[in-house]
Amino acid sequence: MNDLTHHTSICGKKIPDFLDTIQAFHGWKAPGIVFGGIMVDLARELTGLEIETDAIVETRHCLPDAVQLFTPCTIGNGWLKILDWDKFALTLYDRKALCGYRVWIDLEKSRRFPDLYNWYMRLVDKKDLPLDSLLNTILLAGRSSLSWRPVRMTRLYERIKKNTIEICPGCNEAYPAAQGRQCLACQGRGYYETDDSRAKT
Amino acid sequence: MNDLTHHTSICGKKIPDFLDTIQAFHGWKAPGIVFGGIMVDLARELTGLEIETDAIVETRHCLPDAVQLFTPCTIGNGWLKILDWDKFALTLYDRKALCGYRVWIDLEKSRRFPDLYNWYMRLVDKKDLPLDSLLNTILLAGRSSLSWRPVRMTRLYERIKKNTIEICPGCNEAYPAAQGRQCLACQGRGYYETDDSRAKT
Repeated sequence: MNDLTHHTSICGKKIPDFLDTIQAFHGWKAPGIVFGGIMVDLARELTGLEIETDAIVETRHCLPDAVQLFTPCTIGNGWLKILDWDKFALTLYDRKALCGYRVWIDLEKSRRFPDLYNWYMRLVDKKDLPLDSLLNTILLAGRSSLSWRPVRMTRLYERIKKNTIEICPGCNEAYPAAQGRQCLACQGRGYYETDDSRAKT
Repeated sequence: MNDLTHHTSICGKKIPDFLDTIQAFHGWKAPGIVFGGIMVDLARELTGLEIETDAIVETRHCLPDAVQLFTPCTIGNGWLKILDWDKFALTLYDRKALCGYRVWIDLEKSRRFPDLYNWYMRLVDKKDLPLDSLLNTILLAGRSSLSWRPVRMTRLYERIKKNTIEICPGCNEAYPAAQGRQCLACQGRGYYETDDSRAKT
């Protein structure tokens, strides 16, 4: 990717290190995370690197991993929320002032990069668009295929509090009292059946 | 933590490296992720390290990060699903055979470790239980506070497919056609209002 040396770094990492970080976490250099990293890089710069931000992503595909890798926000620490809207957009916002910046892929701008547009709009078969070629296009397009806007949060900005827990009389595990007299699994909403034929000692 | 050297490694990492990995990703050595890492370690051993597994966690607190750090499953790659049940349990399962192992904190067993029990049941104030002391207890308790069972998946095992997308006439962004004639944000379900007073050039 010698033709991409005009990018000095993304999210504070040199390009090869940026790509290696993605591969190590996500299993491969998924184009959505590479593109997502460029979005995070822009959003961090807009909000100011010194500001502690929470994050919202508007799709569960790829983008959550870009935020988790390149900001302190993770699903498990509660600073990242995921909306299952299938929109490739994210917002980083000052968790005290509740204002921040939303960054999204701008379809009009991205038309200048047909591989990027066709990949994003799912107009081309994966086998007809080699990964290295697509990654090159994404890194080349960079911020020029993005738009952004300052926003003020109107909802979804509250940290999720932990619930009051009780011990479920069905399974003897702790569960939130608000779910009823038993936990959801014991209410028949579990996702598994036990299979003691495979029990090990 | 010299008294913990009887643990040689967790999830293939020496204890200090294991703790550093957690801190780097999650921002601090959260006890829930340390404990979660021990659960992942057991579940991986039960399923067999050579098996490609998907994962389900039954809480959004901490445990998703343990799975994302110590297995190839992440939210963004779709191999991890999160149930917001507030139960400290996880299942790793063979994604082809749909069978695997569920691991959970066993309250009865954990009573032998009062700090662990009181922390998990939220019976003690954070300030009365220093982090280092709690982490020591968790590492000492290890698997002896867990139970596990072989399970067969009955639902939630399907990979989430991407939707057919259209361009929203309201915002000109791509969105899933199934959401209606406009995207959810343009239908009034957004989480932000724009604030162009902070626009930058």
